[in-house]
This record gives sequence, structure tokens and C-alpha cells, in this order.
Amino acid sequence: MPVKVLLLGYGLVAAHFHVGVERIKLGEVEPYGVPLARYKMSHRVEDIEVVGAVDVDVGKVGRTAYEVARESIGDSVPVPRSLRDVEISMGLHMGSLRGLPMRAEGLEERLGLGGGLARFAEYLDSVKPDVVMNVITTENASPFNNVAALRDSVGRGSSSASQTYAYAVATWGRGTAFVNVIPTPLARDQAFVDLFSGAGSLVLGDDGATGATPLTADILEHLAERNRRVLSIAQFNIGGNTDFLALTIPERNAMKESTKASVVEDILGYDVPHYIKPTGYLGPLGDRKFVSMHISWRTFNGLEDEMVVNLRINDSPALAGLLVDLARIGRALVEREHYGTAYPVNAFFMKSPGPPGSRNVARVLAYEMLVKWLMQIGVIH
Amino acid sequence: MPVKVLLLGYGLVAAHFHVGVERIKLGEVEPYGVPLARYKMSHRVEDIEVVGAVDVDVGKVGRTAYEVARESIGDSVPVPRSLRDVEISMGLHMGSLRGLPMRAEGLEERLGLGGGLARFAEYLDSVKPDVVMNVITTENASPFNNVAALRDSVGRGSSSASQTYAYAVATWGRGTAFVNVIPTPLARDQAFVDLFSGAGSLVLGDDGATGATPLTADILEHLAERNRRVLSIAQFNIGGNTDFLALTIPERNAMKESTKASVVEDILGYDVPHYIKPTGYLGPLGDRKFVSMHISWRTFNGLEDEMVVNLRINDSPALAGLLVDLARIGRALVEREHYGTAYPVNAFFMKSPGPPGSRNVARVLAYEMLVKWLMQIGVIH
Amino acid sequence: MPVKVLLLGYGLVAAHFHVGVERIKLGEVEPYGVPLARYKMSHRVEDIEVVGAVDVDVGKVGRTAYEVARESIGDSVPVPRSLRDVEISMGLHMGSLRGLPMRAEGLEERLGLGGGLARFAEYLDSVKPDVVMNVITTENASPFNNVAALRDSVGRGSSSASQTYAYAVATWGRGTAFVNVIPTPLARDQAFVDLFSGAGSLVLGDDGATGATPLTADILEHLAERNRRVLSIAQFNIGGNTDFLALTIPERNAMKESTKASVVEDILGYDVPHYIKPTGYLGPLGDRKFVSMHISWRTFNGLEDEMVVNLRINDSPALAGLLVDLARIGRALVEREHYGTAYPVNAFFMKSPGPPGSRNVARVLAYEMLVKWLMQIGVIH
Amino acid sequence: MPVKVLLLGYGLVAAHFHVGVERIKLGEVEPYGVPLARYKMSHRVEDIEVVGAVDVDVGKVGRTAYEVARESIGDSVPVPRSLRDVEISMGLHMGSLRGLPMRAEGLEERLGLGGGLARFAEYLDSVKPDVVMNVITTENASPFNNVAALRDSVGRGSSSASQTYAYAVATWGRGTAFVNVIPTPLARDQAFVDLFSGAGSLVLGDDGATGATPLTADILEHLAERNRRVLSIAQFNIGGNTDFLALTIPERNAMKESTKASVVEDILGYDVPHYIKPTGYLGPLGDRKFVSMHISWRTFNGLEDEMVVNLRINDSPALAGLLVDLARIGRALVEREHYGTAYPVNAFFMKSPGPPGSRNVARVLAYEMLVKWLMQIGVIH
Repeated sequence: MPVKVLLLGYGLVAAHFHVGVERIKLGEVEPYGVPLARYKMSHRVEDIEVVGAVDVDVGKVGRTAYEVARESIGDSVPVPRSLRDVEISMGLHMGSLRGLPMRAEGLEERLGLGGGLARFAEYLDSVKPDVVMNVITTENASPFNNVAALRDSVGRGSSSASQTYAYAVATWGRGTAFVNVIPTPLARDQAFVDLFSGAGSLVLGDDGATGATPLTADILEHLAERNRRVLSIAQFNIGGNTDFLALTIPERNAMKESTKASVVEDILGYDVPHYIKPTGYLGPLGDRKFVSMHISWRTFNGLEDEMVVNLRINDSPALAGLLVDLARIGRALVEREHYGTAYPVNAFFMKSPGPPGSRNVARVLAYEMLVKWLMQIGVIH
Repeated sequence: MPVKVLLLGYGLVAAHFHVGVERIKLGEVEPYGVPLARYKMSHRVEDIEVVGAVDVDVGKVGRTAYEVARESIGDSVPVPRSLRDVEISMGLHMGSLRGLPMRAEGLEERLGLGGGLARFAEYLDSVKPDVVMNVITTENASPFNNVAALRDSVGRGSSSASQTYAYAVATWGRGTAFVNVIPTPLARDQAFVDLFSGAGSLVLGDDGATGATPLTADILEHLAERNRRVLSIAQFNIGGNTDFLALTIPERNAMKESTKASVVEDILGYDVPHYIKPTGYLGPLGDRKFVSMHISWRTFNGLEDEMVVNLRINDSPALAGLLVDLARIGRALVEREHYGTAYPVNAFFMKSPGPPGSRNVARVLAYEMLVKWLMQIGVIH
Repeated sequence: MPVKVLLLGYGLVAAHFHVGVERIKLGEVEPYGVPLARYKMSHRVEDIEVVGAVDVDVGKVGRTAYEVARESIGDSVPVPRSLRDVEISMGLHMGSLRGLPMRAEGLEERLGLGGGLARFAEYLDSVKPDVVMNVITTENASPFNNVAALRDSVGRGSSSASQTYAYAVATWGRGTAFVNVIPTPLARDQAFVDLFSGAGSLVLGDDGATGATPLTADILEHLAERNRRVLSIAQFNIGGNTDFLALTIPERNAMKESTKASVVEDILGYDVPHYIKPTGYLGPLGDRKFVSMHISWRTFNGLEDEMVVNLRINDSPALAGLLVDLARIGRALVEREHYGTAYPVNAFFMKSPGPPGSRNVARVLAYEMLVKWLMQIGVIH
Repeated sequence: MPVKVLLLGYGLVAAHFHVGVERIKLGEVEPYGVPLARYKMSHRVEDIEVVGAVDVDVGKVGRTAYEVARESIGDSVPVPRSLRDVEISMGLHMGSLRGLPMRAEGLEERLGLGGGLARFAEYLDSVKPDVVMNVITTENASPFNNVAALRDSVGRGSSSASQTYAYAVATWGRGTAFVNVIPTPLARDQAFVDLFSGAGSLVLGDDGATGATPLTADILEHLAERNRRVLSIAQFNIGGNTDFLALTIPERNAMKESTKASVVEDILGYDVPHYIKPTGYLGPLGDRKFVSMHISWRTFNGLEDEMVVNLRINDSPALAGLLVDLARIGRALVEREHYGTAYPVNAFFMKSPGPPGSRNVARVLAYEMLVKWLMQIGVIH
């Protein structure tokens, strides 16, 4: 049974998702980095089919996914020819690339707000996605908390791109799963949970749990279980992809920071002086970001220990691997009439799990909970 | 209700345990590094009382714990005066310090094997321990598998020091908990499990789970849950305490190595090229060992990631913190007539958990299991 | 022959300098961290005598150096009783602590600008320093380039604290050495070089070469000599002392950043994408800062290598050790009638060596040049 | 003017040297990793021509360099077609691959010692090398000290492969440069220095200065110049190429260790507890070795600092880059009638610089000395 996916934003994460899924179909690579690949799931990895993609970078719109992916991914990975079948269409801009060094244009800029929204709804009609994936660049946005305020903001054109997309999808038709892996509050905004719930659809989010933060969470859990008293945490991130470039803009950075730091108190049960931030942009690092982390704690008999973790990791593929499961789970949940949002999924896959008020737990515990729940409801076995 | 503890071997681990417990009683330090300190347990940390200690280093025998602890611990931690009440008595040697640069003498060397064993039994009569802690230097030894072979070996004087001590304790009297935190197979030797079970006593072990290995286990679990394919693991350890000095003797090192490496396949479910060894001795590092770990894995879309972890940790206090819980749990289990051994305890606290045939699980899962079980049987709440 | 030192700013650097010199006199510690201690110099370490100290933190003014040093240094180092003989007097504020969480008052605030300057000159008369050390908190300031502009600014009260102090010392009397180890441009401002030169005095500076930057310089030189093409450099610094706190104020940070980054092109001969910044403040780290550095380069046959350096270093003592030599060299140069500034000294000891237009060279080459020059002019042998 | 090179041993270093030089000729890569590439030298990189290559691995003998290089180097680097012109001939074995998992056969095994040596001399006649490069696997060998003992040993067939090769080259004809970048003592064996000197030839060696050791040397120099007292040094190396595999054989490891450790006392002027060893073999790391280094020192005022360096570096290309200069310099020196050996060259390029009795200096100082000397004698300008 196919899982038809529409990609919002065709940057590195989308490209790696698209290329990786096609390469798995071709037998070129194993589904490493796909958490639940070792379980039998109702929808197989090979069932995923990218049916559409939108972007607002004028350098991408109108070209094939093949061309765009080859440019962004470079030589590191071969791009299958099947990507020629997908064209990048124009999406909604809503200022999401403002301040970044690329020329952007969105449907609402070309057709006015009403016209743009209508055109996007037609696009949804034409591609008929089961799952819509939001992988646009990190933007700055606040929750609405209630549906009326959300509706009002969309009407005035003051909602962010992610919020506008999510609203458009929720009001388009029943039975769609919307997966939000950027920091914009959707699954943790009661407005969207209510909207999707009422529409017989599902929103999963927010902010995909990759990079250093999930590892930090598990390391803190490791320390907490030994009752070691954490004294300080410093975590630096530096990379060379568009997301790091975007984070040099202070408000976008603040957005990211908040989803990272909440993990500390949630897991330890007490707050600790910490510095956890996307720190800088350094072009030559490309998509392989460098992370350095220093944690110190008090051990038995009053003495002090220290740990330094240095990571050199491919940023986008890590998130793309999660998307493979999120697409399949999202579809399976909707088929089982799970509407609104799904905490057990968000708790493992997201940095800021919805619904609002949810707590971070160590990922390893979240994983156990997730597997148990998905087995119970028959999604995996 | 007091928990009376006898320490076998009064090296750095014993000294930190002894000093740390007394400092907690004095309110000088918090019980950090004691995993279950945040739960209410039937026996409090303050209930622990060191009633005796034996060693075979002639530089220690006959002196007070206060003097010996001050020498070994140095200036880093103040030594409470209450340690003057405990004198280090002569224990059984059985070759356990052979090859190391200290002069050693044991009861069996002074009084013959029979006389030595009899004298040690008298010592047990005099101090009446609830819990006996084995913290002698890493030795080389193999399991017996059946009680007859064990009894025979002890009779011939060919058993190792730990095995001889454990045999002596098991045959001394009912209701004692023997805690083995060095690599010698006791809790994973069916001979000892049967012996303690038959004697209405308990053996917990083997090889206390501190240092880099438990952290490695949790990091591997973290990777496994994301289906990242681990490609290689290198782990170096270097330190300046007696245990590292002992590990420059190849057979002792091999003993340690085996308990470290088994963790990889147990957790990942497949074997991976790895180099995990106590690597070297470097005096000036003292008790603060340096650990470096390199792990590489394949992520989504066939790309490769890397992680380097560097630790600078106090070796002995970490283990001493575990002893605080092991003493209390050991006592509590015996009171509840749990004899033989206790897998849920060993699975969290030990690198090579008994009984024989037990598997390593990620520590964070072992912790959950432990807490659940101890609540069920009313040890913590 | 004594070297009489006046300290401007009695923070951690001043305290470690003062305590360290007194402990060397007492034979408690070796002069480690004093670069030229292994040479015979015209003035011995023991010849250094702290004759005065000023500060504008009202929590320090009027107390003895002993009290202030004990509070700032804590338990890590014993403070000799001889520090009771030095009282912290009130200095000039000129806004240098503005925005920082301590109450500050300076002579010019109490007595007006003219009165304050006059009172400071009287203070110089009373303590008669041979060497004045500027170790106040990092401030934001620009060079004047000519003496007239400098004089004018001091007259209007718009010069920074360091500039005002340096002006006051230069115009006070002949034969004084002014040592500036903070980033304010003094030795690399032609105005001050001319002023000191004309006054028969000496200014050494700017920004003492400790921390990660000198090490980075030597590592880059190492790579350059093998013709490895550096691709990117990321360097993070985080610490918990007042200087890191000050650097959370953006303009002060920019000041520091500029002296760090110039090193890259000076040594490699080409520019490289780099991120080299004091990154954050984390109280519990105290004076032991954490530095993480990632450098990648292209090696032979087009392949890429990587290096990560992690440091955990005592920030203030490193600088204090340099001050010991700077005091002695400063005095020796003045005695030999070297006025203005001294590039061979600045090139090794400073991050932004004066006079203006000077270039950074690898520290190891600067060291060779320094030793050769000091031997030539008879300061060391 | 061409520099005709014969390669002894066609492993990864030889292959990277050969491929890299040809790619530079094709303009595919810059001469990064070639230390003196930025100077104008009498012989250009493009003048190097590989005229022959020998090996004793039966899987390589008789095949073209192109085939062998493609297998060993893999996909990371394209192999130019010009490598098809060089065939790997059979060399002398002398037990150099004993104990390693590849089938080996040498000329002396096929033709007897006398026949084998004669055949190798014929081979030299046919390819007429200007420079012979010794890049066979690390072997175990001791110096002879005088020519008579050397001659005697070669006659009895008890000399090592490197020693036999060097002897054969020295006695073959005048004017050849022999470059030894493995640990076997040649340039630091007076026997060979005398032999080459008498023959109007040159030997450069021993043990090419790549990997962590030259960096360690420069870091120690950095500390020494600040009079920081080094307390301990731990350095781990792990890799997956044949050289690391060979080093799992204890005597070969000892050979390597000795050339690494001498650096410490030579540079610091005092000995320090250190652990500096090639530590282990881990296949998946391939030619990109992982190095971890921990250095601690005492700084000013008695406090302690720490540094951790982690490297991930291409092992063979680093050495291959040095060979490019060594070939050119070797040829240029012979043309200028510099016979015997050349300390200024060895001091920079080698870990154990000959002639016997030579001292290690910080590489950065050795580099300065080298450049100065080569300018003086007109090799570079």
C-alpha cells in the first residue's frame, strides 16, 4: 500500500529523504538510520512515493528534483534517475527565506494571499498526498493556542509559512498526516491539535530529534540514574548548511535554542547552568556538522568528573532517516483513525514533543514506550 | 537498622567507600554517585557501618583505616576521624598481589592453609558482617561450574583469593550478602550461586559497572534504536592507580578485557570490529583515569558519522558509590530471603552480571527493570 | 634590585600574579608558567614586589589584597600572609565595569575628572612603581593614532579606563614600564608609542598571549610548514570568570574577537573560513575554561584530515605567569633606555603585538627571536 | 631534469606517492602536503618519474601499478592511467612479511641468496634509479655500527630486507639517493652512513615524521617555551592499514615505539611519564587512523592544566607527501656531491634523524634550519 508524500521545502533534508528512499528501493543501500526498519511495519520503506515537492527558492522552482538534489548533495551520494519524475513547484513564501542570501518568491506574492492559498489547495488536489512533510528552513513563530486566533492570522497573512501550510493541509481534506520536523510550534500548539483533530487528520511534531540533543538527553539520563550531580553543560554546534546559515539570524537561533535547552531540566529534574546553542556557520563543513559538548558532574565523595563529546555527523541524512518512519507511522495512524496528534511518536522523534505541556524523557525510554504502543495498536510486529 | 560491612582489600575503592559514607553521616557531602539515593530505601545510607577490613599489603596490615586512607586518598578529600576505629587485619593472600610492587603476606602464608582459613572464620565471628565486599585487585581466575570442584580447589589451596574468600563467607554462616565488584567469576559461576543459595546467603556480581563500559553500553543502545550501523569501536583507558598497574600484567588484563567486550554484541545484536581494553598505566594520572573512545557508524543514505568521547573521571569513587547501594540492597534482599543471586541487581550494577548465561542490556533499561523490581518487593518506595 | 609593581585592576589575574610571586619567594611552588624562568635574568622572580593595587569594584576598595585574593581564588591555592600588606585603593572607573553585575565607583566619579586624575597622580607618587600592569576587565576602545587626539580625549573624559591610566602613567614621570595585557590598543596605537617614547618610558602590549590562540598559532604554523591546506577553523571558548561574563556584552566580545582572528591570515598567508570567538559564560566552570577547536585541511593527493583539540585550562594563572616575565623585562628594558615599545617582546607575549602594523608570527619563532634579542642586549644569559 | 624513482614495497604509501605525483602532473590536485612546494626548487614535482617498483606479496608481483593501486586505494581517489606503464617486479623478502596474512616470495627464496642479490642488481641496471625509496612494512632490525659487520651479515643472509636493499643500492653504483622512511636504522647506523659516503651516494632517514609524533613534538615545544611543567603524556594510535596490522606483532611494535618516545626528553629536557605507542589494529578505520592524546602540565601558581588532541588523519598520503620532497632533495644533494647523510634534511623529515647521536628538535625549528640550509646550498630559492 503506497504512502504518497508531499515535501514542503526541497533542501538537503528533503533531497536526502528522496534520494535515500529511492536508493533503498534500488537495493543500493540498507535502511540504516531508519529507527524501526528492523521491525515489520504495515507500510514498508519501499511503499513510500514522493508525489510532489514545493519550494520558494527561485533557483529551484520549475526544475526537477534530480537536478536540485545533484546540486545540493554533491558527489557524496549518487542520485537515482527516478528523481527526474518529480518537479519542484512554487510554494508559499510568507517571508520564510527573508534575510537569507537566495532569491525567493511564493504563490502569495505572485497571486495575492487568497489566490496563493487557492492555488496551493489545487496543488494538493492534484498530488493527493497521504503525508505532508514540513522541512523548510527554521523560521521564527509563536503558538496561537486557539483555532480562532489561528484562522484570523492566516486570513490576515500574518502566520508563518509552516503555520500557513499546516492550516492549508488541515482544511484541505480528511485523513492527511502532517509531519513537522522544524521548531515552529504546530503539534505543541493547541490550535493546530484541535484543527487537525476536528478535520480527521493528524499532526506530528515539533522539531525532529536529531543532532546532539537526543544524545545529550540519553547521556543526562545515564548520569541521573547514577545520581551524579550535573554541574554544567556546554554544547557547541557548527555547520555549513542552510540551516546553520539561517541560525546566524538571531530570532531564528532563539527558536532553535528553546527546543534544545528544555531537555535539561526535563530529564535531570533540576536546572543546571548550561550553554546549549547552535553556535556558528562555517561553509566548508558543509552538511557534516561539528559538535562539541562538555559536561561536568559531582561524583561520590564530593569529587568532580568531566566528559567531552565530539561529533562529526551528517546533519540532513539523520533527519531524513527519521522521516522515513514518520511517513509510514503517520499514514498508519490515520488509517487507524488516530487524529489530532500522537505523544508516543512525538516523544521519541521530536525535540519539542506535542501536544502542549508534554515533557521530554530520555530517548531510550521514549523508544521503549513507542515500540510498545505501536505493537499494541498493530502498526509494527 | 545497621548494615554491618566487612571490606576485603583496603585499596582506593574501599577507602573512598569508607570515607564517603562517614562524610555523608557528618553532612559534609551529598550522596551523589549513589544511584538509588533519591528513593526511600529500607536501609538508609547512614545505616552503613564498616565493622572490619582485611588486606595483605604488609604496609597496611595493623594500621588504622584512618592512616591508610589518608595516604592513599591524599589531600583531595578530608578523612573523618571515625576511621580511627577500624583496624586493617591480615587477610588471605592466595597470590593475589604476586608480580605487583608491594610486599604481601596472608594468613595462609603465616599459618598454613587450614590455619589461615580457620583464623579468617574467627575474624568473621568477631566482626559479624551483614555484607562482605570484595574489592581486592583484579586477579586471574576461571569458574568452577560445580560446588564439588570448587570445594576441592579450596581444599588444595589452588583457588584465587576472591574464590577462597567467597567460599569462606558462604560456609561461615547464613544470611550474609557477598558483593563482588572485581572481574573474578563468582555470581556468574554456577558453583558459587549454588553454594550461596544452599547456605541461605546471597552473592552479587561480577565486576562493578563503572568507567567507560556502562556509558558505551548506553551510547550503543542509542545508536541501535536509530538503526545506525556501527562500523567500529575503539576504547582506550589509562590511569595511575593500582588496578591499572595490575593490568600491565597480561593475564589480569585479559580478565578485564573479556568483561568489557561482551557488551558490544549483547546490545547491538551483531558483532563489530572493536578494540576495547584497559590500555596502559601512567602514574601521574593517579585515580583520575583518562578514557578516549571512537565510534563510527553508517547513517541514512549510506553516509558515515563519527563520535569521539573523552572522559576524565575519578575511578574509585564511582565504584564506591555503587557499593553504597549494593550494601543496602544486599542486606535488604537477604532479610527478604532472596538467596543465591539477583539478576535485576547485577544487570544494572555489574559488567558481567550473574547468574551464568545472563545478557548485558543497555544500562538505562536495566535501571528501569531494577527500580520496578525493588519497588515490587518493597526495598524502595 | 627590586621591581616595584602597581596592579591596575585586582581581579583573578592580579591575584594569581601576586599570590604566585609570593609563594615562589616562600619556596612553596616552582616558577612554572614563567617562560624565561630557566634563563638567568638581570632581575630575579624574587625581586618582584607588589607595591600597590587599584580597583573600582566597591566590594574590593579599602580591603587588603589578602582578603580579596582569598575570596576570588578560593580554596585551590593558599594565600600567603604577606598579601595583608597591600591595600586595594580606588582607581579610575571611566565606565569600565558598566553593564556588569558589580557596584563600581572611580576617583573621577567622586572627585570630578580633574580631581580624579590628580589623586591618581598622587597615588603614583606615593607607591613609586617601576612597572604598572593593566589587568582590568576587557573594555571596548579604539586607537587615537596621534598624541593630540589622545590628549584631547583624556581632557574630555571620553577615553577608556586603560587609555586614561596609560596616559596618566606616561605623563607622571620618566622610566616607567606600562604592561597592557588586555585587548585595548595601547602598544599598537601610535599615539601611545609616541607618548611613552617621548616620556622616556615604555609600553608593552596588547592582549596577553594565553589561552587557545597561541596554541592555534603554533598548530597552524605546523600545518603551514607541511603545506597542508587549511579548510576551516572553529574555536569555541567558554568559562566562568569575570572576563567571560564581560564578553557576553557584544562590543567587548568584538574587541576580543579581532585580536584572535588576525592570527589566521598572518600565519597561513591566506584567509580561511573560521569561527574563532569567546563563545559563552558558564559560571560553574570558574577560572578553568573549556576550549574546543576543530581544524580540517587538505593533505597530499586531495584527501581531507581533521583535528580536534580540547583544552581545560586555568585562565588567569596562565596570564599571571607571563606577567612575571613582563615585569622583569619591562624594568630591564627601561634601565637599558629602551623607550617606546619593544616588538620582540610583544611578538611572543601578546596576541596583538605593537607597534601598529606588526604581524603575528608563530609563537615558537617569536620565542627564538625573543631569546636571541634579550641575550644580545644582556637581559638574559 | 627528471628524478627517476624506484619504489621498494608497493603498499599504500607507494601507491599514494605514485598516484599523487601523476595527478599533480595532470593538474587534478594541488601539491598540498608537500612541505617545500611553495618554494622554487631545482627539481619540480613534475620532474618525478616512477621508473620501477618491487614487492614480495605474490598478489602484487607481475601486475601493473595501476591494478594494485586501484585495489589498495579504493574509490577515494581516481588512479591515472599512466600507472599502467609500471609493473611490480619481485623484490627481496628476507622475512619482512613473516607473520602477516599475505603470501610472500622474494628473489632470494627463488634463486638463493647470491642469485637473488645478482638479479636485484640487474634490475637496478635496467631501471637506473636516481632515488630509491624504502617504504616496506615496519620490520625489526638493529644497527651494525661498522661496515664489516654489515657486509658479513648480508653475506650470511641475516640482514633485514631494508638493510639488504640499502646494501645492494650502495654497492651498485655511485650517485644514488636512498630514502628510508621506515624505522629500520639506516641513516642512524654508522655502518650505512660510512658505506654510502664511501660509495659517493646518500642515505636519508629514518622513519618518516608523519602522524602524531611531529605534532606532539611541536606541542611539547610550545609548552616548554612557556616553562609549563609537563606531568604526563598518553598517546594512542589505532588504524586499519597493513602497518597497524604489522604492529600487532610485538617486536615490530617495539621498533616503532622507540622512535616515538625519544622525542619527549629531547624536547623537554627532562623525562616525563608517558605512554606513546601504536596501540591497535581496527580494520574498518582503513588508512584513516584515529589518534588520541592527553597531556597534562603544571602551570603558574601550582595549578594543573590539561589538553586532549584527537586526530583523524590519512596515514599514507601524509608520508607520501614527504616523499615528494625527499626524492627531489635527495637528487639535488647528490648532484651537489653531498654524500653520506644530511642531518638538516633528516631533522625535519624523520622521527629518528641520522647520523647516529642526532637529537630531535621541535619540527618548527627543524623546518627553519632546513629552509635556511637548502637556500644556502642553492637547492631552493
